[in-house]
Amino acid sequence: MIPYTAPTQDQLLAIRINAGIEELAQSERFAAAEPDLVEAIVEGIGQFAAGEFAPLNRVGDEQGAVLENGVVRLPDGFEEAYGHYVEQGWNAIASPADFGGQGLPFTLGCNVIENLGAANMAFTLLPMLSIGAIEALDHHGSDAQKAMYLPDLVSGRWSGTMNLTEPQAGSDVGALRTTAHPVTADEFNGEHTGKYRIKGQKIYITWGDHTLADNIVHLVLARTPEAPEGSRGISLFVVPKYHVNADGSLGSANDVRPVSLEHKLGINASPTCVMSYGDNDECIGEIVGSENRGLAAMFTMMNNARINVGSQGVQIAERATQQAQSYAKERIQSARAGSGDANPVAILEHPDVRRMILRMKALTEATRALLYYTSGQVDRGTLGDAAAKARADVLVPMLKAWGTDIGIEVASLGVQVHGGMGFVEETGAAQHYRDARIAPIYEGTNGIQAADLVTRKLGLENGEVFAALMADIARDCADHPALFALAGECAAVGTWMRDEASLDDRLAGSVPFTTMCAVTVAAWQMVRQNRAVSAGDAPALAAIKPVTTRYILDHVVPEASGLKAAAIAGAGLLYELSADQLVG
Amino acid sequence: MIPYTAPTQDQLLAIRINAGIEELAQSERFAAAEPDLVEAIVEGIGQFAAGEFAPLNRVGDEQGAVLENGVVRLPDGFEEAYGHYVEQGWNAIASPADFGGQGLPFTLGCNVIENLGAANMAFTLLPMLSIGAIEALDHHGSDAQKAMYLPDLVSGRWSGTMNLTEPQAGSDVGALRTTAHPVTADEFNGEHTGKYRIKGQKIYITWGDHTLADNIVHLVLARTPEAPEGSRGISLFVVPKYHVNADGSLGSANDVRPVSLEHKLGINASPTCVMSYGDNDECIGEIVGSENRGLAAMFTMMNNARINVGSQGVQIAERATQQAQSYAKERIQSARAGSGDANPVAILEHPDVRRMILRMKALTEATRALLYYTSGQVDRGTLGDAAAKARADVLVPMLKAWGTDIGIEVASLGVQVHGGMGFVEETGAAQHYRDARIAPIYEGTNGIQAADLVTRKLGLENGEVFAALMADIARDCADHPALFALAGECAAVGTWMRDEASLDDRLAGSVPFTTMCAVTVAAWQMVRQNRAVSAGDAPALAAIKPVTTRYILDHVVPEASGLKAAAIAGAGLLYELSADQLVG
Repeated sequence: MIPYTAPTQDQLLAIRINAGIEELAQSERFAAAEPDLVEAIVEGIGQFAAGEFAPLNRVGDEQGAVLENGVVRLPDGFEEAYGHYVEQGWNAIASPADFGGQGLPFTLGCNVIENLGAANMAFTLLPMLSIGAIEALDHHGSDAQKAMYLPDLVSGRWSGTMNLTEPQAGSDVGALRTTAHPVTADEFNGEHTGKYRIKGQKIYITWGDHTLADNIVHLVLARTPEAPEGSRGISLFVVPKYHVNADGSLGSANDVRPVSLEHKLGINASPTCVMSYGDNDECIGEIVGSENRGLAAMFTMMNNARINVGSQGVQIAERATQQAQSYAKERIQSARAGSGDANPVAILEHPDVRRMILRMKALTEATRALLYYTSGQVDRGTLGDAAAKARADVLVPMLKAWGTDIGIEVASLGVQVHGGMGFVEETGAAQHYRDARIAPIYEGTNGIQAADLVTRKLGLENGEVFAALMADIARDCADHPALFALAGECAAVGTWMRDEASLDDRLAGSVPFTTMCAVTVAAWQMVRQNRAVSAGDAPALAAIKPVTTRYILDHVVPEASGLKAAAIAGAGLLYELSADQLVG
Repeated sequence: MIPYTAPTQDQLLAIRINAGIEELAQSERFAAAEPDLVEAIVEGIGQFAAGEFAPLNRVGDEQGAVLENGVVRLPDGFEEAYGHYVEQGWNAIASPADFGGQGLPFTLGCNVIENLGAANMAFTLLPMLSIGAIEALDHHGSDAQKAMYLPDLVSGRWSGTMNLTEPQAGSDVGALRTTAHPVTADEFNGEHTGKYRIKGQKIYITWGDHTLADNIVHLVLARTPEAPEGSRGISLFVVPKYHVNADGSLGSANDVRPVSLEHKLGINASPTCVMSYGDNDECIGEIVGSENRGLAAMFTMMNNARINVGSQGVQIAERATQQAQSYAKERIQSARAGSGDANPVAILEHPDVRRMILRMKALTEATRALLYYTSGQVDRGTLGDAAAKARADVLVPMLKAWGTDIGIEVASLGVQVHGGMGFVEETGAAQHYRDARIAPIYEGTNGIQAADLVTRKLGLENGEVFAALMADIARDCADHPALFALAGECAAVGTWMRDEASLDDRLAGSVPFTTMCAVTVAAWQMVRQNRAVSAGDAPALAAIKPVTTRYILDHVVPEASGLKAAAIAGAGLLYELSADQLVG
């Protein structure tokens, strides 16, 4: 197995330049995020991830999560590693200080997740989902709910899940049918008065059941009896696996169980559960916030969850790149063409292998730069900067969609670098290719991200938010003609979409447009890194950054320009044929 | 499971227009390939593949090939289906008439493989490998060898394998170490005098062992004692699993055995064997052709094998597209945005899903058009048309590289169309994504294809072969500005590569250049199809072809133009850093 080494220097650069951590630390709220602490965290989590999570990546894939006698069994070593993770306090980095968290910037929470996920993507879904639950309860829960659930969620002793999907309700959450009936005072000896009785089945519930945490806090979307149809009739409920007593101790088991696990293409160590609520009509949940406001509550946390899924693209890309680098420098095959030397060389010496490795590395760094630029805008938003918050809203769909597409591309290149060995599972390269494939699907498919960009985000403040982003890039990159031109093209296509194009035309071009925009922003952030990187602080990085930046500018930016025709082609061609004609 | 339906009309169009079957049938050699027979074959193999091979695709993936007590066990149903395939004579379509084949054009052999492979890619590697063995023996074997091996290989009662790779000799075949020592007259009671004793281990041997065929004819590359080093010291041997008696009956087992099977990412029903030759120093083989000419013999057949691997891209794309089409028209989710109707619709009605389906379909048709254009040039070459033969040489690396890249892209889109269901193995979409991944690797990686194009094929006849191809396209497509421009760009880049660029610069840009060229030729062939398709013959196809052609012209051609910068960027950036700096 190829060990994982955290790309600490590149992460620190991205956190400093793209997220702007030093500026964040000037605020009262994030005053603790001083350079020494930031460095300690980034180095510490990198070492923890490499030492504890990374060695479990292959065994996690091979053994997978298994449901036995109603209990989810996890691969060897997971329980111990999770224990260490909780003990060392990594779960609490960016969580609210009122409940035991360190209250540090979201950016540093992103770094924890990036490192853990590069080491072990399937395992890291466990803390990722908990973070979502913490956020939802922190923003929408009552004081009593916060006091009851947050301390143990923040520490990681308990974990969280999100329950949206049902077989008929995937991208269309509004179609869900799980019900929540108020418990009457004469039921359950009055114990659960004011709560709800939950009944229904949810699918694709990530880490829906397991025994690594003492309790699991399920956040469940359901409908109350008189709720309006569709997405306006959905409420959010907190449904613990074990009831929690008033003194915080755990009570009896709630009426919720994992019915089965999906047999998936990848992330096999992550139990993807079908969950059944209320088989015996005794599943008790409390409402979070008010009735029919559940979707809004879910959306609060979804923006940040989407950032962490975009990060999964970075994670897989980093891991696949490291593995391919290792192979390319060790595998000896064929003489170097044209060298006059007949001795075989490391395949890294061959131009096309070198191109693949450089492409992998450049794309990984560029998606990371976009990740931390986005997280930094979120943190500024938290500090009350409305413009930054709006910019984050615009960036999130770009990061989620493009980042996860890049995860697949880089993982696929990683297989290719290995040649025949890449297709053999023992090598491990194939696992990244399999694991990567989920990220463009969950947390809103990439098509939905692109729709979000062109239908909602593009119109924020009459288009000013998007226009200002592209104008900033054009202003800052006038000395990079291809990027300058691409920013101009994005701005023009954006204006056309907002002002002239029909909804269908916008949606038809949304995916190529999202890619164009993401490349533009990521290339900009690479340019910014390249200006700032210092040979004194990070000599290896200072050597490579000009090369990866130029690769993005000279190769990836022109490719993105090639998508403009598709972005503005409109929907006419798509609907020229009837559905029956199209699918034969 | 989604049944496979052969795309018979599109195949017939491609065979007629791109391969030019009617012109081929005017030759004496291919006179039998009259329209009625062609139609009967294409329809017949389509139905056979759909009825017998397609239902075994999932079970083949689930059960896989397994080595038990030294014997390869295949998934349920494979033996029976292969029996029917042989009985019905499908193996013999394009094989030499002297040995029981029908002697029909290679194009029709390609169609047999395309249909079988779309139905079941892993299974179809068995006949694909046999075709390669037939070709090698037919071109390079002695009369006695032909008489001994070809009749049963042609019928399919025996199968063939190719044994090139060893652990240290992958892309660099010249590094192989398997030995072949002449048998002396006093050994084996004089029975094998004139033959060779083979000893060595080969890896990645597709269908290296199994019991579907009565005998397996291994073609093995090895070195004779005094052979020069490297690729000039390699000879080709025929090594039967069972010795063949003079009367054609099978004798004792040869000293060859499968050591293990690889645990692979995909094509699990295809046993990928580590083969050991001569464990007991009793493995007997006969030389094919003369000593040290083995690689040349292997290369004869490799061009056609590469066409059939390029075809695997078409196959996976077709199958994945059909599956996604089926899902997209049946899965009901979300109201149509902007329609004013709140009822959920089939996801095919949503613009971005529709875009994905149209893209999948258009890319599938375009790769197919390129496949049959290439096979038609091969057939013309067989008839003595040297220009066509040279053009085929130029087309093969484009087809192999781009076709297999498209296989992955379309399979990945197929997963995406399914949403969460696509990531669940039971759906079957994920299998295509896994199966597709091998095709860019084997039979010469796509990087090697691209190197072949820019170092060998581009220079054929001082560049005239390549230049004439692009000139033909520009001449024929003056009414399609983007394609006309792209052909001009390809021609210009080709000229630069041949006349000015260093070897490193050529290799550095070879992969994006190969994609550009492949798209140019494929788009041209779609334009030709679109001009010729007739609503009278094929109404459904006549409706869709203008749409898929326009998609290629308006979306895919501009994307390919976006690769030009990478094609001409040169190798400077790749070598700006030392290998150690690049890989950290």
